[in-house]
Amino acid sequence: MALITPSRRLRRTPFSDGVEAAGVTAYTVYNRMLLPTVFRSVEEDYRHLKEAVQVWDVSCERQVELRGPDAGRLMQMLTPRDLRGMLPGQCYYVPIVDETGGMLNDPVAVKLAEDRWWVSIADSDLLLWVKGIAFGYRLDVLVDEPDVSPLAVQGPRADDLMAAVFGDGVRDIRFFRFGMFDFMGRQMVVARSGYSKQGGFEIYLEGSDLGMPLWNALMEAGRTLDVRAGCPNGIERVEAGLLSYGNDMTDDNTPHECGLGRFCNTATAIGCVGRDALLRVAKEGPVQQIRAIEIDGRVPPCDRAWPVMAGTKRVGQVTSAANSPDFGCGVAIGMVRMTHWDDGTALRVETPAGPMDAVVREAFWL
Amino acid sequence: MALITPSRRLRRTPFSDGVEAAGVTAYTVYNRMLLPTVFRSVEEDYRHLKEAVQVWDVSCERQVELRGPDAGRLMQMLTPRDLRGMLPGQCYYVPIVDETGGMLNDPVAVKLAEDRWWVSIADSDLLLWVKGIAFGYRLDVLVDEPDVSPLAVQGPRADDLMAAVFGDGVRDIRFFRFGMFDFMGRQMVVARSGYSKQGGFEIYLEGSDLGMPLWNALMEAGRTLDVRAGCPNGIERVEAGLLSYGNDMTDDNTPHECGLGRFCNTATAIGCVGRDALLRVAKEGPVQQIRAIEIDGRVPPCDRAWPVMAGTKRVGQVTSAANSPDFGCGVAIGMVRMTHWDDGTALRVETPAGPMDAVVREAFWL
Repeated sequence: MALITPSRRLRRTPFSDGVEAAGVTAYTVYNRMLLPTVFRSVEEDYRHLKEAVQVWDVSCERQVELRGPDAGRLMQMLTPRDLRGMLPGQCYYVPIVDETGGMLNDPVAVKLAEDRWWVSIADSDLLLWVKGIAFGYRLDVLVDEPDVSPLAVQGPRADDLMAAVFGDGVRDIRFFRFGMFDFMGRQMVVARSGYSKQGGFEIYLEGSDLGMPLWNALMEAGRTLDVRAGCPNGIERVEAGLLSYGNDMTDDNTPHECGLGRFCNTATAIGCVGRDALLRVAKEGPVQQIRAIEIDGRVPPCDRAWPVMAGTKRVGQVTSAANSPDFGCGVAIGMVRMTHWDDGTALRVETPAGPMDAVVREAFWL
Repeated sequence: MALITPSRRLRRTPFSDGVEAAGVTAYTVYNRMLLPTVFRSVEEDYRHLKEAVQVWDVSCERQVELRGPDAGRLMQMLTPRDLRGMLPGQCYYVPIVDETGGMLNDPVAVKLAEDRWWVSIADSDLLLWVKGIAFGYRLDVLVDEPDVSPLAVQGPRADDLMAAVFGDGVRDIRFFRFGMFDFMGRQMVVARSGYSKQGGFEIYLEGSDLGMPLWNALMEAGRTLDVRAGCPNGIERVEAGLLSYGNDMTDDNTPHECGLGRFCNTATAIGCVGRDALLRVAKEGPVQQIRAIEIDGRVPPCDRAWPVMAGTKRVGQVTSAANSPDFGCGVAIGMVRMTHWDDGTALRVETPAGPMDAVVREAFWL
């Protein structure tokens, strides 16, 4: 692996001092911000995530704030998910599409109030699309990036750690709901959510000045819980089938291809700019779709799309892959054509390390 | 320095195989794509750039293509630079601003024809802003990212190398003009431009399949010229005062603050969405502006904004810095308030390595 050259453009976060002190060894760049990827090793971080509790600097989940009388209308323009039943206090995973139905992002929308939303974004400058639409339609709404930096607490002991810092009230937060909790006199959004299947929370730190105090409070309170600095884990997230925008999907793909049809209510999402373009695929289904793919053998790092072959015919591609200690195989996320996406279909994946046997699975591992 | 974790999301380029074979040692991420930053060492690469010729993989300068009857109108909406006199065959450096006059990007616009433009972008997803505006205004224009990857040839021997591959016609290309040249039967845009002050060209490779053939042809033809793989150099670009979006400016800044007032014709740029917001600053000038700052002593890597102080008062910030072998000092780019921006003003820069004496310069070093 090569080194990463520091610059202001690759933004530090309110927690960077803590991340560095904890011995981060590798990063990726996500929304032009540093996102840790490895502390001890990907395998050791994985084991610890599944057994204890970790604090993750996911400040790179930048927020796009929509505020004003037209905030709700604008939010519905962005997504084919019907938002009419959504209440303040809820988080929705929302595919965001352009006017052709292509995916621009797959964020979590946080409804703070009827006229105020945060969109917790994946890796694309969604702010620019939202600002462009708001301006073009002359909507009465402010759109900007607030000083909000999410910190995730993930792992089986997450409830205990969070309760130690925020009080037992956090235990009552339901999945994809949030509550307001006090930290050092400031109210913070605390949601039961996160980019792992090990359970946990995301704290939306508002105000960078409290970044290190919050980090330190969690580390201090978690001593007896074996808390460590961690990060989204490249093995666990593939086992869990957690998609990554830019890896597993791009603006070439519809939400239905990404297996996100269940988050689309295309018929009733009146106002969504991509609605018309998505009506047919919503009705008839996509011709290719995201699948769990089990690979026989040890996979190399997946830094590009790997062709998926049936004989001499290309029928898809793998876009994320890892070697799973718990399942003893290569685990992968790929897009496969309808003709070859059934559970148990034997395929061949062409990796830079050579061709490898693979099989389509009905579901992901976790 | 930490490592960078490979993933498909950090896109490879048509030249990545060549870059790796040439022994790249560090990268940054730019427009979600790998941009090499170091081959031998920043100092050794710097010396070689100034004495010979280098081939740079700057595919990360992604293109936003505007095509259709409203392409010209849309292009003018994006920038306060008056484009009426621009001819096909010309390249313009164009500040791009939002409706508040904040910088969204500082690309080079390439006018291919009256109804077809490429915008060769700095590090932000300008595509999303342009698509949003085009959609909101119902413009008759296609906006997308074509399969175009720029390859730069930079250094004092650039003309000789380019002539060896494309013919002597390239010698006649004037600064910021382009011509169409043949490579392996395909026409390519070749412009006299690039992100150094050493002279050279950018080849807009259209069609990834010819990436490695083009790379290899340049390396082969350049053997007697001591050609090497290179990249934008962190020292040379600061000496030259070449700004970097995300480092030296963000959407907080107007073009005038960035010293780009000479590229703005705010009064006559009818249609520019940021025109109204910029009229006052265009007339009265900004209260802070980009300046060359000479630092006394050896500067650490600049990975965050360094406060610039006059006594106990913060009067600006340094956002890019390097140690210049040729000028024997720390060279830096910063934003300084009007009260302290005059040539020769003594200031103090607060770096992570401690405070350092500094002085404002009238001009950059090259």
